[in-house]
Formats: sequence, C-alpha cells, structure tokens
Amino acid sequence: MSKDYLAEEVQAMPDKWNYAPHVLSLESSIIREILKISSKPGVISFAGGYPGPEMFPVEEMKQAAMEVIDEFKSNALQYSLSMGITPLRDTVAERESKLGFPTKLENIIITSGSQQGIDLCARAFLDPGDYIITEYPTYVGALQAFNFYQAPYASVEMDQDGMLVDQVEDAIKKHNPKFIYTVSNFQNPTGITMSEERRHALVELASNYNIPIVDDNPYGELRYAGKPVPSLKAIGGDIVISLGTFSKILAPGLRIAWMNASEKVMPIFERVKQCGDLHTSTFTQYMIYAFLRAGKLEGQIQKLIKGYGQKRNLMLAEMEKNFPSELTWTRPEGGLFIWVEMPKHVSGSKMLPKAIEEKVVYVYGAPFYPDGRWDNTMRLNFSHAGPETIVEGIKRLGKVIKDSL
Amino acid sequence: MSKDYLAEEVQAMPDKWNYAPHVLSLESSIIREILKISSKPGVISFAGGYPGPEMFPVEEMKQAAMEVIDEFKSNALQYSLSMGITPLRDTVAERESKLGFPTKLENIIITSGSQQGIDLCARAFLDPGDYIITEYPTYVGALQAFNFYQAPYASVEMDQDGMLVDQVEDAIKKHNPKFIYTVSNFQNPTGITMSEERRHALVELASNYNIPIVDDNPYGELRYAGKPVPSLKAIGGDIVISLGTFSKILAPGLRIAWMNASEKVMPIFERVKQCGDLHTSTFTQYMIYAFLRAGKLEGQIQKLIKGYGQKRNLMLAEMEKNFPSELTWTRPEGGLFIWVEMPKHVSGSKMLPKAIEEKVVYVYGAPFYPDGRWDNTMRLNFSHAGPETIVEGIKRLGKVIKDSL
Repeated sequence: MSKDYLAEEVQAMPDKWNYAPHVLSLESSIIREILKISSKPGVISFAGGYPGPEMFPVEEMKQAAMEVIDEFKSNALQYSLSMGITPLRDTVAERESKLGFPTKLENIIITSGSQQGIDLCARAFLDPGDYIITEYPTYVGALQAFNFYQAPYASVEMDQDGMLVDQVEDAIKKHNPKFIYTVSNFQNPTGITMSEERRHALVELASNYNIPIVDDNPYGELRYAGKPVPSLKAIGGDIVISLGTFSKILAPGLRIAWMNASEKVMPIFERVKQCGDLHTSTFTQYMIYAFLRAGKLEGQIQKLIKGYGQKRNLMLAEMEKNFPSELTWTRPEGGLFIWVEMPKHVSGSKMLPKAIEEKVVYVYGAPFYPDGRWDNTMRLNFSHAGPETIVEGIKRLGKVIKDSL
Repeated sequence: MSKDYLAEEVQAMPDKWNYAPHVLSLESSIIREILKISSKPGVISFAGGYPGPEMFPVEEMKQAAMEVIDEFKSNALQYSLSMGITPLRDTVAERESKLGFPTKLENIIITSGSQQGIDLCARAFLDPGDYIITEYPTYVGALQAFNFYQAPYASVEMDQDGMLVDQVEDAIKKHNPKFIYTVSNFQNPTGITMSEERRHALVELASNYNIPIVDDNPYGELRYAGKPVPSLKAIGGDIVISLGTFSKILAPGLRIAWMNASEKVMPIFERVKQCGDLHTSTFTQYMIYAFLRAGKLEGQIQKLIKGYGQKRNLMLAEMEKNFPSELTWTRPEGGLFIWVEMPKHVSGSKMLPKAIEEKVVYVYGAPFYPDGRWDNTMRLNFSHAGPETIVEGIKRLGKVIKDSL
C-alpha cells in the first residue's frame, strides 16, 4: 500500500486531548525509572526487586514449555477461562492447603502478576475518596495501583513486629476504609514480618468490622532465618484475600500469580478481571503447571532460600563494614529487601545522582510513604546482584553515604 | 504446619463487604457464559471469537519457545519494561509501517491482549459520566471494559459502509465525548467494514474537534474478498490510536497485542499500564518475536485467509440453504463473524435455550447494543468450527429458527 493516504487536514494534538485529570497526576514508578538507569553498563543496582538471574531453572522451564506444546497442543495457544486454567488452579489450591489453609479450586483466580491482584482488589472496592488502611511505609507498586482509583490512605505506623494494630481500630472508626492492605511477610520495603500476636489481633479487628484484609504475600516462602509464623490466611480464613505469586519463587517474566479468597467474592473478581484483560496467558499458565506437576518447585525454593540467604548475610556484613555508624537498618529474616534509615538531614533522593556517578543505585524511601515524608531512607535489594557485585556495590554506596553526612 | 490456626472469633461475611456499587452492577460477559456451555460434549459452538485450533502453528511455536530459552536464557524469564521488550516493539513498528503508516519504536506499547488496550484507553480518558462514541452495535468486550468506568454511550448507527459519520458531529456537540471507539475492519459483531470515504470523513471530523479515534483492529489482515481499504491509522495518523493483536493472526493464548499511537500519549499509557500489571509476559513476547523474526507470520496469515475464507463461504452457503427467507445477514469480506437479523418478534436470547437443546450455540445480539435493544439478532462465528461441524451446526440452527418464527 502507498503511504500517501494521510489526509492533509489532519492536525491531531495528542498533548491537548482531554485526559482524565486524575491520570495526569499519576507518577511513573520511581523504581521503573531507576531501573532504566540500572541497565547502563557498569552500574550496580540494588534498586529492583528482581530475582537473581542465576537462580532461574532455565533448562527446566524449556522442558516445561516443550512438554506443554507436546501434551496440550493447540489448547496451550487458545483462549482460556478468566479464572485461569483448571489444572493450575487445582495445583495452587493444593499447595495453599499444605501451607496452612484448606483451599479449593473455587478459592483461586489466576492473575497476570500480583500487581493485577492488587488492581483487582482496587477495582472491586474503590470509588474515588474511599480509604485504604496500609502500613507506613508500604509497597510503592500498590500505592501506584491505588492512586489510580484516587484512594486516600489511612497509614498505620510499624515497629519491628509489623503494623501497630492498636492504631487500626481508630483508623477504621475515622475513615471507614474499604480494606486493609498489608505485606505481612518480609515486607516491601522494610523486610519486617508481622508477629503472630499482631496477626491474631488484626484478624480479630478486621472480623469485628467485617473489613477484608488484603495480604500481599510474594515472599512468604523465602525465609532464611528465624521461626515461621502462620499466614494471615491460615489465621483469618475468609476475612483475608491472600495474593500469591510465582514471580519471586520461580520467574516473574511469566506473569503468573493468584488470589486466594472466599468463593463468594469470586464472581466479582472474575468480572473485573474480564474487563481488564479477559484472561491470563494460557501458555505460561500451562508452563508453570507442568513445572509444578513435575515436583520441581520445592527444590527450587530450597535453592533460593540457600542462595538468597547467603546474599542477605553477605550484604548485612558488608553494610556493617562500610556504612557509617549513624545509620540503622533492618535485618530481615526473609524476602528480598533491607531498609536503611539515615540521619534525618540526609536525603535519599538528593543522594541518588551522586550514587549514579559512583555507578551504584538504590531506591530512595520517600515514594513508599503516601505523603512522601521520610526521604532519609532507602531500600536495598540483595537477591539480584552476585556476591562480588554486592561487596563492590556496598563499598561504593558506603562512600557516597559518608560524603553525604 | 497445623491447620488449627484459624481464630475462633473469625466471622467474615464477604457477601456483605462494601464493594464499589458500580462493580455490583457489572455483568459477566455473556459470551464467556455461553462459552462455558459450549464446552459440553456434542455442542456445536458458533459463539466465541476463537481461532480454528487446526490453524495454530503448534510446532513452530514450540520451536520459538525453545529458541527463546536457548538464546535469551534468564532474560526471557525476568521482569521487563512496561512498554514491552524492545525487539518486539521494533518488529511490530516495522510491520505497521509496511501496512501503511510510518511507525517507530516509540509509537508502540505492548499490551496483554487488545482487551487491555481497550482498558488502557478507558483508564487514560474516562471519569464517570464521560461519553464515548461507539458504533451501534459494537464489540461487547469493549462495552464491558467501558462499563467499569461508568461511561455512557453516544451510539452511532451503521449501514453497509460502517458508522454513519454524519451522525458523529451531532454526537460530539451534544456529548463532548472523550474518544470515538470503532472496529473499522470486519466489525465485531456485524462483519461490516467502514468505507474509505467514511474513514476520511471520520478522520476529518475527529481532527477538527481534536478527539482521538480508537480503532480496534484485530481482523484487518484477515480479508477473504473485496478490495483492501487503507487503515484509519494510515489516513488519520496521530488522531488515531490503533489497537493491533496477535490473537487472531497467531495465537490468543499468548496474550500479546499492541497499541500504535502518538509518542506524546505514551507516557500516559505507560503509567496506567504499570498500575494494571507492571508489564506483559516477557516470555510470550519473546516467543512471538522469535516467530516473527523467522519470517513465519506472513505465511501463517495466508494460511488463515485461505482456511477462514473457505469456512466463511461454506457457512454463508449453508445459511442460504437452511435459514428461512425472513432472515437477513451480512456477507463480510473478512474477519470472523456473520451478523444475522431475524424478524422483530423473534428473540435471540429466548431462542438460545432451544438451540442448546439442539446442541448448537451462538451469541444473541442484544448485549452488543448498550441499550440491549435489538434482541432479534445474533452473531455467528465461522473461524472455530471445522467444515462438517459448520454444515451440521447451521442445519441444527436453521431448524431452531424455523420453530421460533
């Protein structure tokens, strides 16, 4: 076809289109912006929440992909149900049951990453102005999803045992929130795990007011130290909507996650999922099903626990050596992140350009607070970089911090 | 872990949770409900928009999956950019350019199916009460996506040349719509293609008012008869946001589609995409990239044109033989659907249970109209069933219709 069709009268001005005002105020994910910088050669990144690439079971995933085509043929390439493919939902339900809460097929909907699970909760509950209770700080991707729906936050402070649950009842009375969002295990960004006592208290409170708890739980199985704590789902049952994912325990690029919730909620999640993307990739669902069926996931998780546990220990040791004594940081028993607090006059965001000059990047902490308040903080990821890189990166970062004090 | 954690005090009542009121009024996709029936043994389905399973390049996709792992290794399993992986965006841009409109990498964002493209347009533009101009009837999945955002519709009637563009200006003046949504090629559900003259008129009008046209174009390359018409994008350039997909020309189960739009719009789409699912599956993006790079797509499309063209001819011929003369239907030059109008007193929805008894299903037409008005219509898909099944199914359906007249 010729390229001369373009009508002469066309004078589109996309910059003047009539966008929804609340969309214009959305910010691009600071993490994703920093990640663009991280891909430059020589830059050491502690910024993303990326799994270590050396940990991916590459050959096994190739095997799974081949098996899927050989066994399910055209079905693996066809449209499938909005709830997800049945064999994967069944397998996930079985695993969830083993992990502490009896779960059936009907309780599981497959989502396109946990980010979509967060979005589906927002879709199901939020009108503009509806409050959400969150930890303070909390996962920035969740804030981004919720911001789209113009949600204000009732932020609840944390200590080393997680959310201060005695602040929650006041927040409920004052704001009538639609749900309570928590990352109860090895929280993003702080690495803190909610204590068993707090979990019971939170569940009791939520049940009294019949307000759902959304437990975003990507790291729960990645514990390197300390004693396991029962999941909020195991304690709270139907009051909890639990978000699980294969992104951290297997491979994020397949974009397969799930929600575990009361079957009474499922018709609503199914509908809002249909609005958003009809259904999640049939092919990658089957790939993960094939991998699980072969019994390979538990070994993979053990491998991750060993590898990430060593990286965590290494990073903590190097921080001890290289960071000035004015700083404090968490010592997470699992997950992917360490949270650093610097003296109040030090700005994590203003320090970043200096760090980039020294070829090391991190995520500064302000975006994890809905009010952006505590800029003297930063989040460090220890799962992605290799050991030598961790040593070199923490050395560089220590220097940058010392120069900024 | 023991299963005795469940706190005794828990009394969740998910049916009484405080959902967003507008979500409770959403209906599940009628098509997806009918598809659940279609999967019963012996039932012949003309309901979905499913590709013919015999058409999938199964072995080539297996080859692509293996290549992807061998070549891109852990990168194929890792997180990737919200805009999509660069080699796929590049390849799509090149194809779009060949198809009539010069397109660069910066104009392409990869989406999780075109349904997500529709949703991203809604996210970018709509506040509750904002109007959209659509054809009447129009694609039910788009209505479902827009309904979530509480969009009212300025519906524009169609004739055999598509949307009656002279009604559009009035609708613009009256409703100040956020965008014009059209399926310009082999429309879903009617199979009608907008004429070149109408396209120019629509582009001129949209440009005068600077209102974007969202051209949902999944079938544009599947033409079996008649003369090609330049795409709205080729005619309109930046005033058009064009949605393309690999679902109909390759495999829907991979959930890979794209938007082609002015680079000025992209920061907004990137942000709302991040809110929704961070990014689309890295692995299936690479799979499609590998398939395209091997030059296999054009042959695949030729195969589809031949196969679907024959099915279309067969279904039209069988309808001629088996359907009563009181009915009229479209003779689409491409796409996947034939649209049937029955006498006004015949209800497509009331007839469906009788059809199910005779083990044949279709989608009745009412849900394609925002006001659900014209229930004497139905949409028949000819891409999915095999030839013998088409013959038998149309015979069964003819009988059901005759009994209902």
